[in-house]
Amino acid sequence: MTTTFLHDLLARRRAGHSLEAPFYRDEAVFQADLAHVFGRHWIFVAVEPQLPQPGDFVTVDIGRSSVLLVRDDDGRVRAFHNVCRHRGTRLCAAQQGALGNIVCPYHQWTYDLGGALIHADHMPAGFDREAHGLRPVHVQLLAGLVFVCLADEPPEDMQRMVSEMTPYLAPHRLAECKVAAQVDIVEQGNWKLTMENNRECYHCVANHPELTVSLYEYGFGYRPGPQNAEGIQRFKDIMAASHARWEGMGLPSREIDVLDERVTGFRTQRLPLDRAGQSQTLDAAVACRKLLGSFTDPALGGLSFWTQPNSWHHFMSDHVVSFAVLPIAPERTLVRTTWCVHRDAIEGVDYDVARLTAVWNATNDQDRRLVEASQAGVADPAYEPGPYSPYTEELVEKFTRWYVQRMRALAA
Amino acid sequence: MTTTFLHDLLARRRAGHSLEAPFYRDEAVFQADLAHVFGRHWIFVAVEPQLPQPGDFVTVDIGRSSVLLVRDDDGRVRAFHNVCRHRGTRLCAAQQGALGNIVCPYHQWTYDLGGALIHADHMPAGFDREAHGLRPVHVQLLAGLVFVCLADEPPEDMQRMVSEMTPYLAPHRLAECKVAAQVDIVEQGNWKLTMENNRECYHCVANHPELTVSLYEYGFGYRPGPQNAEGIQRFKDIMAASHARWEGMGLPSREIDVLDERVTGFRTQRLPLDRAGQSQTLDAAVACRKLLGSFTDPALGGLSFWTQPNSWHHFMSDHVVSFAVLPIAPERTLVRTTWCVHRDAIEGVDYDVARLTAVWNATNDQDRRLVEASQAGVADPAYEPGPYSPYTEELVEKFTRWYVQRMRALAA
Amino acid sequence: MTTTFLHDLLARRRAGHSLEAPFYRDEAVFQADLAHVFGRHWIFVAVEPQLPQPGDFVTVDIGRSSVLLVRDDDGRVRAFHNVCRHRGTRLCAAQQGALGNIVCPYHQWTYDLGGALIHADHMPAGFDREAHGLRPVHVQLLAGLVFVCLADEPPEDMQRMVSEMTPYLAPHRLAECKVAAQVDIVEQGNWKLTMENNRECYHCVANHPELTVSLYEYGFGYRPGPQNAEGIQRFKDIMAASHARWEGMGLPSREIDVLDERVTGFRTQRLPLDRAGQSQTLDAAVACRKLLGSFTDPALGGLSFWTQPNSWHHFMSDHVVSFAVLPIAPERTLVRTTWCVHRDAIEGVDYDVARLTAVWNATNDQDRRLVEASQAGVADPAYEPGPYSPYTEELVEKFTRWYVQRMRALAA
Repeated sequence: MTTTFLHDLLARRRAGHSLEAPFYRDEAVFQADLAHVFGRHWIFVAVEPQLPQPGDFVTVDIGRSSVLLVRDDDGRVRAFHNVCRHRGTRLCAAQQGALGNIVCPYHQWTYDLGGALIHADHMPAGFDREAHGLRPVHVQLLAGLVFVCLADEPPEDMQRMVSEMTPYLAPHRLAECKVAAQVDIVEQGNWKLTMENNRECYHCVANHPELTVSLYEYGFGYRPGPQNAEGIQRFKDIMAASHARWEGMGLPSREIDVLDERVTGFRTQRLPLDRAGQSQTLDAAVACRKLLGSFTDPALGGLSFWTQPNSWHHFMSDHVVSFAVLPIAPERTLVRTTWCVHRDAIEGVDYDVARLTAVWNATNDQDRRLVEASQAGVADPAYEPGPYSPYTEELVEKFTRWYVQRMRALAA
Repeated sequence: MTTTFLHDLLARRRAGHSLEAPFYRDEAVFQADLAHVFGRHWIFVAVEPQLPQPGDFVTVDIGRSSVLLVRDDDGRVRAFHNVCRHRGTRLCAAQQGALGNIVCPYHQWTYDLGGALIHADHMPAGFDREAHGLRPVHVQLLAGLVFVCLADEPPEDMQRMVSEMTPYLAPHRLAECKVAAQVDIVEQGNWKLTMENNRECYHCVANHPELTVSLYEYGFGYRPGPQNAEGIQRFKDIMAASHARWEGMGLPSREIDVLDERVTGFRTQRLPLDRAGQSQTLDAAVACRKLLGSFTDPALGGLSFWTQPNSWHHFMSDHVVSFAVLPIAPERTLVRTTWCVHRDAIEGVDYDVARLTAVWNATNDQDRRLVEASQAGVADPAYEPGPYSPYTEELVEKFTRWYVQRMRALAA
Repeated sequence: MTTTFLHDLLARRRAGHSLEAPFYRDEAVFQADLAHVFGRHWIFVAVEPQLPQPGDFVTVDIGRSSVLLVRDDDGRVRAFHNVCRHRGTRLCAAQQGALGNIVCPYHQWTYDLGGALIHADHMPAGFDREAHGLRPVHVQLLAGLVFVCLADEPPEDMQRMVSEMTPYLAPHRLAECKVAAQVDIVEQGNWKLTMENNRECYHCVANHPELTVSLYEYGFGYRPGPQNAEGIQRFKDIMAASHARWEGMGLPSREIDVLDERVTGFRTQRLPLDRAGQSQTLDAAVACRKLLGSFTDPALGGLSFWTQPNSWHHFMSDHVVSFAVLPIAPERTLVRTTWCVHRDAIEGVDYDVARLTAVWNATNDQDRRLVEASQAGVADPAYEPGPYSPYTEELVEKFTRWYVQRMRALAA
């Protein structure tokens, strides 16, 4: 694929419509996605509770890049390319663990937790150790969420996201949580289809019986009409009352939406939950008796936080659930879901893992099937881009528009 | 691969020889095969008994294209691209089933059996439903066989095949049959090797002990010589007597061969069977006691019907067996075999599935191994095209010549 | 990939450093490796004991090429492309066996053990059988080792290797051995990483507990210093004494190293073994009581023989272990290990297969993991070539230099 081909594809994108097929299938577009979207933006990769102690590490694959996250002896989260500077061996094959130094399994080249090469046998007198330290990766923490940027010069507007989002997220004290469960699933589809699926609930009623226990039907867009005017008004009233109550408790709740206005695009909103109103569970009641931070009221709804290009999160009174979308191949994507509860909550007493994870395990699997049906369809020569609903697929359009804008700026 | 590369490959094809290796392996040649051979000719995909009732559907993959065949409320067989006009989702994932309307699993866009979009939630006022109906695919029925053409303008000479073949096939009343068995196998080889294998019986004696129970040794070509003059003459006599008898019963039997003369190339001939002379079974006797149509005489030989580029069929007094060759990848091909018997035949009483399918299940597996050995060989850098026998591989040459002609006309 | 791309890659190779990533991953580089390295050099493929009798055959895949080795009726080892001259079918699918003539399974074209086409049914009067014999492959035997060259004109310096190596190898009488065990493993890595791994023991101490039972720590390079001066001197003394003893017995032992000086590069050296000093086993004592050839002294150390581009061998008093590296795909490589013992040794009496194969089965699996960790690392966009140790990775550099030289001469 020439740059011209990508340029033309991007140039003829029709607003309000799904993308042309090559965006979902072409190897060269995928490589451009890795280079420009995943290689030059802030990517959500982990939560701090995965790295509670100095020496704890996590490895995350972003395409062919493996990033080694490690908490150093000063308690700081560091990130490095997981590649030995000798002959390129993968340093840590495990997805997580703990280590003192970082020792290459091949010839025992040894790096400290700051990435400095501190030992390399058999190298000659003039060998420059300092020139052979691990290559660092930029890290940014946000209230317990860990983002990395593979580029030398990361987008600067991350700081605005951090300052705007910290008041929303901080009360949930994610960094003081523990991981209760983490599940990886692989979807046989392009990562953008996974993201588009996440950005609308048009498909929820017919596909997600478990999720829609707690979700309000009108929380994610609806074509207004006489038949639903009453329901929409009732939802607006509940929303206004809930926001007033939560803001009074010091919990910012109003929508911020800069999804397609910023390089580091995001959206947040604290949404009331239906029924028990407490948590995304099968009865909408909390899944963990021990509430997060200093919360005492379980009915805090769900604070949702969506980021471009690859994550979403729901912060509730009792747990936080985070989703990272990590592309593997043009038609294969990893979705990693992490559930965190209060560090002092006791499994089997305060919470039950099956109950905690039931809604999203079911929903993820349903979404996987939809993504895979979409992938099969867009791969069909008969596919042509179709129209998004302006009522229910506005955020899909914002994702797609952001993607096209960023690719136009960087890749074409 | 440039068009020049394909053009040169086609230009230097040596008559009477197998094709050069790229025709069997190259991804770009395969894409050209899909676009020009499978995308612009009449492709055999199903038999009518797969769709007995209104609402019955079958999906068939032709390369990346999925075709949805459905019998509409008027009893007519329709075909559509199996792709939602909203965001491209595969509409029907199942290979067969029944439905009232065609409802997309993603956002419930709903089409009637004529392909019209009759329901789409949340779309705005100006949305043009008529512009978003399912994309139709051309269908042609021939005495119970279902052909489709993915092109906007299908080859017109299909009508000649229909008018010439109907008298041969109609007496077997395939459309009034039921499917007794259908078996899919995947061959690790290029679809053209599967077709070449089908178009000769030079390999039969050494490889197909079950099939050669009923096949006459001289029915598919032989180099004449003193040692076989008597056998050949005996076969000619049987053939002449059989044809006279069958034609007298109103069953056209003489050979028609326009395999390499027409765009919609085909060949037919009613051939006597050896031993019991009734059916392709392990004893050459009928596999189903209830004969097809209004037949009373089981000894009708086998009416064979071969079509370019992807099917062959044997119509006997008691059953019809049909083969569809569907390319999956340059080195992977689906062979779908369907056995049909009289609609009123009762399994376990009139026929036994294991007995009905024994010969072709064994033969297909033997052919799969041969195709796979050929694929391994033509992938070897040492491979070079070798000579076809003018006596036993004449129909292979006709297949290859047809392919090269069609590709020269359309692709180069 | 254009030739220019490969030319530039080769031109900018930095001496003393591992190769750039495309050499380990790129499909086009891999094809060039097959064409120029494996297609135009002498490749080790088998040992004579795999073909003890006339009619015995072995098939070996070198990339997409399959070579059929057969011992003919005169006891001579012949090699042919394993491809029928009719329609290209793979002649022998089995990895080994015995045959009278070579009969194609498809249409029974029949070749004698000299490759001549002696039978082909149904071919016309003018058919030229002599023009359709099997395509031969060059074979060279060296004291029981079988090398082939796929090129029409093989490198001529093979004769120098044969004359120089025969005195070293002949006393072990490999051709009179039998195969005690043969194990194939597939490494998920490029063949050059497998070779680089073989050419250094920098990684041995930390990774190969079984192998280092018998290997002397100082036999494969070490950075000299005050802390190891005594150990190195002791090793030198053992080496000198051993060489004197062995040469006195008529066993050439001194190093020859023309790894990067010749087209047919190789290296040899008879090295003392530690502890019992007899064999590469878990206690360094012989694994087979019946010694090779006319040996009576089991303490002959290990005569190692390394060839470019794809083999190494250890000849001991009781057994010979040979390794062939055969590329399958850019990131997939077959390693075939063959253990041979005296033809008259009796399993369960003179030797035990598990004991014979223990060290190298363990070591191969450890090396496989290291190669796979390296493959993962060099595939990471963060990888850049790193420095080889001049003390312990000198032979790695010689392999890499040989490769780059040969590719520059032939491919760029």
